[in-house]
Amino acid sequence: MERHEFQPTQYHNTIGSHEPVLHMSPGDTIVTTTVDAMGCDATGEQVATRGNPQTGPFFIDGAEPGDTLVLRLDRLTPNRPIGVTATVLAPNVVDPSFARHLPEHPEAEWRVDHERSEVALASPIAGLERLRLPLAPMLGCFGVAPARGEAISTATSAEHGGNMDYRGFRQGVTVYLPVFVPGALFHLGDGHALQGDGEIVGTGIEISFDVEVTVDLCKGERIGWPRGEDEEFIFTAGNARPLDQALQHATTEMVRWLETGWGLNTVAASTLLGQCVVYEVGNVFDPAYTMICKVPKRVLSQLAPPRPGR
Amino acid sequence: MERHEFQPTQYHNTIGSHEPVLHMSPGDTIVTTTVDAMGCDATGEQVATRGNPQTGPFFIDGAEPGDTLVLRLDRLTPNRPIGVTATVLAPNVVDPSFARHLPEHPEAEWRVDHERSEVALASPIAGLERLRLPLAPMLGCFGVAPARGEAISTATSAEHGGNMDYRGFRQGVTVYLPVFVPGALFHLGDGHALQGDGEIVGTGIEISFDVEVTVDLCKGERIGWPRGEDEEFIFTAGNARPLDQALQHATTEMVRWLETGWGLNTVAASTLLGQCVVYEVGNVFDPAYTMICKVPKRVLSQLAPPRPGR
Amino acid sequence: MERHEFQPTQYHNTIGSHEPVLHMSPGDTIVTTTVDAMGCDATGEQVATRGNPQTGPFFIDGAEPGDTLVLRLDRLTPNRPIGVTATVLAPNVVDPSFARHLPEHPEAEWRVDHERSEVALASPIAGLERLRLPLAPMLGCFGVAPARGEAISTATSAEHGGNMDYRGFRQGVTVYLPVFVPGALFHLGDGHALQGDGEIVGTGIEISFDVEVTVDLCKGERIGWPRGEDEEFIFTAGNARPLDQALQHATTEMVRWLETGWGLNTVAASTLLGQCVVYEVGNVFDPAYTMICKVPKRVLSQLAPPRPGR
Amino acid sequence: MERHEFQPTQYHNTIGSHEPVLHMSPGDTIVTTTVDAMGCDATGEQVATRGNPQTGPFFIDGAEPGDTLVLRLDRLTPNRPIGVTATVLAPNVVDPSFARHLPEHPEAEWRVDHERSEVALASPIAGLERLRLPLAPMLGCFGVAPARGEAISTATSAEHGGNMDYRGFRQGVTVYLPVFVPGALFHLGDGHALQGDGEIVGTGIEISFDVEVTVDLCKGERIGWPRGEDEEFIFTAGNARPLDQALQHATTEMVRWLETGWGLNTVAASTLLGQCVVYEVGNVFDPAYTMICKVPKRVLSQLAPPRPGR
Repeated sequence: MERHEFQPTQYHNTIGSHEPVLHMSPGDTIVTTTVDAMGCDATGEQVATRGNPQTGPFFIDGAEPGDTLVLRLDRLTPNRPIGVTATVLAPNVVDPSFARHLPEHPEAEWRVDHERSEVALASPIAGLERLRLPLAPMLGCFGVAPARGEAISTATSAEHGGNMDYRGFRQGVTVYLPVFVPGALFHLGDGHALQGDGEIVGTGIEISFDVEVTVDLCKGERIGWPRGEDEEFIFTAGNARPLDQALQHATTEMVRWLETGWGLNTVAASTLLGQCVVYEVGNVFDPAYTMICKVPKRVLSQLAPPRPGR
Repeated sequence: MERHEFQPTQYHNTIGSHEPVLHMSPGDTIVTTTVDAMGCDATGEQVATRGNPQTGPFFIDGAEPGDTLVLRLDRLTPNRPIGVTATVLAPNVVDPSFARHLPEHPEAEWRVDHERSEVALASPIAGLERLRLPLAPMLGCFGVAPARGEAISTATSAEHGGNMDYRGFRQGVTVYLPVFVPGALFHLGDGHALQGDGEIVGTGIEISFDVEVTVDLCKGERIGWPRGEDEEFIFTAGNARPLDQALQHATTEMVRWLETGWGLNTVAASTLLGQCVVYEVGNVFDPAYTMICKVPKRVLSQLAPPRPGR
Repeated sequence: MERHEFQPTQYHNTIGSHEPVLHMSPGDTIVTTTVDAMGCDATGEQVATRGNPQTGPFFIDGAEPGDTLVLRLDRLTPNRPIGVTATVLAPNVVDPSFARHLPEHPEAEWRVDHERSEVALASPIAGLERLRLPLAPMLGCFGVAPARGEAISTATSAEHGGNMDYRGFRQGVTVYLPVFVPGALFHLGDGHALQGDGEIVGTGIEISFDVEVTVDLCKGERIGWPRGEDEEFIFTAGNARPLDQALQHATTEMVRWLETGWGLNTVAASTLLGQCVVYEVGNVFDPAYTMICKVPKRVLSQLAPPRPGR
Repeated sequence: MERHEFQPTQYHNTIGSHEPVLHMSPGDTIVTTTVDAMGCDATGEQVATRGNPQTGPFFIDGAEPGDTLVLRLDRLTPNRPIGVTATVLAPNVVDPSFARHLPEHPEAEWRVDHERSEVALASPIAGLERLRLPLAPMLGCFGVAPARGEAISTATSAEHGGNMDYRGFRQGVTVYLPVFVPGALFHLGDGHALQGDGEIVGTGIEISFDVEVTVDLCKGERIGWPRGEDEEFIFTAGNARPLDQALQHATTEMVRWLETGWGLNTVAASTLLGQCVVYEVGNVFDPAYTMICKVPKRVLSQLAPPRPGR
């Protein structure tokens, strides 16, 4: 149950089998920082190459391919007062005929007010002068080293996690990732002070973070795609294009979870999901889109008790 | 402000320029019934051809192409105790390799308990014996006659509405539809006692309804896709395949609404949506999928006041 | 074996169960004309509403739901000297970021030189002054009335045919369509003097036609999607979005054809298609895209002889 | 103009910045071998990890990011008598409802007859006993190291090339690839004795190859996606899912080629492509699909002469 503090001095623009910066045991907590998507730290200085530079990787002792890595996102706190967003919808999220008329416009700065726990535009945009939105920090990009020597760009996502840009990866959430290499090699970065569904302007409010994550292992439990849970829901993430395929991955992974975790067969899992499933759009901007498949815990509590280990 | 009662004796399996069954004025209310997706009425007897048979159409006096039809869903009440669902996931919502292993299984009956306002399986499915879910009635298929003489199957959806199978079309919601023909020719049917996001088994809990809908007109206001609002959100619906294109339609329609309704330019609308938008999956089963794009009213209240008429 | 001449005086912008203009027997030939996509006839005068207005429908005596309609495209001849094309790529066929930079530009006229059997631009476009392309007439939109009272816009396509805009529907080709209503109710229109794969500017060289089509019936042979054959290939057409789904329909229909027509089982059909299949893109512009799945006849000739009737 | 012979002893399952095995100058030729997709060499022995193991990488002296690598595929010859294919359609290329009925079936062996230049099944499959198909060797997977330290699985493809599985990458073809890292780092493997469009059973006739490739450089010419040319066509490759997006990439790259290579503006390029473009499906099996966009050289010869260097 050790608490490790780590101050990164270099960052990675791929998630892969890089040299680990630290060894941790299951149950340990890592306290560290992340730079923003452009590589700027808490002081606003650019210290890494732009494109979701990652802190880590962290080697989890005992993690082996076929295990599941557990991450509890204990604390995600923007550590500077200013974040940045794009201000024009990505051309792929509007009708192609409408895309022809999208303007060019510079990025906007947003001020984070920690006391009121809200954000407001620092750059003037006509009509949005009075806009105050609740602060809702989330981790845009994190994951474990993929199998077979791949090093995957932090622009995209896959089974290993990566740039999922799902606003549900917020403080208090527990995330499960499949382990592909010894030590799992966990990376993290790309904090957003706030983001709508889909990351449809191509950014959240991009900002540097103080983070605290507790790691654990489910030995011998093999999952196919990232999973998670919060107070109210369990969820799975599918990463692919088009959104239809992301939804297929997330739904299939949820069926598997219901089968192994709650002992349902495919008919029972189908019947349940048919009337209870909730989907959320992670992102529709990155090379792989992310779809989230959720089931309410109040529904699960009406099933047979979960098997030990999940 | 007349209140019309209408008991249908025939039904339509397309939404088109059929002979109207009744004339209504803006402000009037229609009190009627719908049969279930298989054509069965409140007594369980099959009285119409299966495939979302529609009650109507209703002719709204004064409605002209280029207007917007307003529908307030005042009451949506299942009017019999038993509904039906499929019990196996549609093969298009799971990984193609997993689709190979989907079983065959008969439909299940569900009992609607109006006193407790909940539903439970009447057919035995192992593991779901204790499942009780809140009743949440919604209208799966409704719309107006399309332009240019088209008669569109009630299996699918488009700009005119149709089989959107979105669980947000529930009692208390106001819906806006573009008018394509004189009188608008409003049809409705396909009630569900409950449905998860996406209608991923291919059905909600299919059941016959008592319904009450108040109609109104926004003269000279032209919209592109179905819109709606409830207590907390305004929303737009995009209907197409793949889900990506449905999302493009819904997002573009929302930008247009923010522009005409709140006077935002594209940059302001983009910036707002980027950090505030919420998406919901209507259906991913029908020939056209449905994606919903939502903006919270608490955010809109921070903008300039809406222009008169919207 | 009658030869009917028919000069249309009205046209349809949907394919549906409209009043037939003529009755024909299997084996008969219809000699008629079609207007261009904008409704202009051989004299250039607009005589119909724009949007692929259709000549017909023709009632084929004896055709019943579950039969297959056979169409031999005996003659497809542009009947005026000038055709028209759009001059800018459709925004949906280029990268969304590139779509932002597509210019606006008026349509271009093309001159048809029947003697040389070629076309050339009549409108000046810099760089294309010397361009001469071989005349290759094709029928963009034709089909039979769909089932259940649907009337489907001539903008799109489905199992009944419709606006497939496939350049392989040219003189000499035999087409097979499923019959959904008594008499089949065959419509045709939207001739192109030439068109590239995909109709990616949204038009071929749009022009009016003299046409001659011989009809026949395969009684009791039920097919799922349009099929065809020329000297070298048999082919199937799948109509849907995205292109992936159009390909799924076309491929599945070809497997069924190989199974019923040549007695192959799924493994043999798969193994054959895996190493021999050829795909062509019909259109990627219309609401439903069209993908063509082809198998060379020289390959089929190495299989067991086809069963009688196909 | 040196001729290098290289016998690989190790292979890579990613395309990335691996240690080069050989340095070559522009104009040089490499004579080497590739193992099949499963890692088996000319003797049938497995010498590499399955999954399109690559020979190389080869360092091209003088190649810098922003250049274009030119590859002339001088010789592609299967170097053993037996190849292997899957025998069941991939579930993603058929209708989801049909996927449920796909059988399981073992792989088939095919015998390569070099004298007759044809292939035939060595495994018995009912109905295909007489099947003889022309030998048509092609390279399934080859590419250059991607930018920013990525190492991309040989299962998939992107701007750098990779597992495009396009049957047009055959002997005599010239390929152009963007250079992302010093030396380009060219890898190659995954030979097929034959393959249909789309690789729809998930394999071609997988076999080991003797290959001969001559390399060259276009200094300072930056391209976006793989390009190529044969006797009759120039072509571009787009790699993505869905097929629609692959087509967008390929089409956009072709517009750029017509603009920079033949001096056309977007209107002229559009008008030309609209009536002349040809598409081919590379693969619809791998994680990224491949669409090919082609323009006939007989059309290009009617334009202004190409600029030097292309």
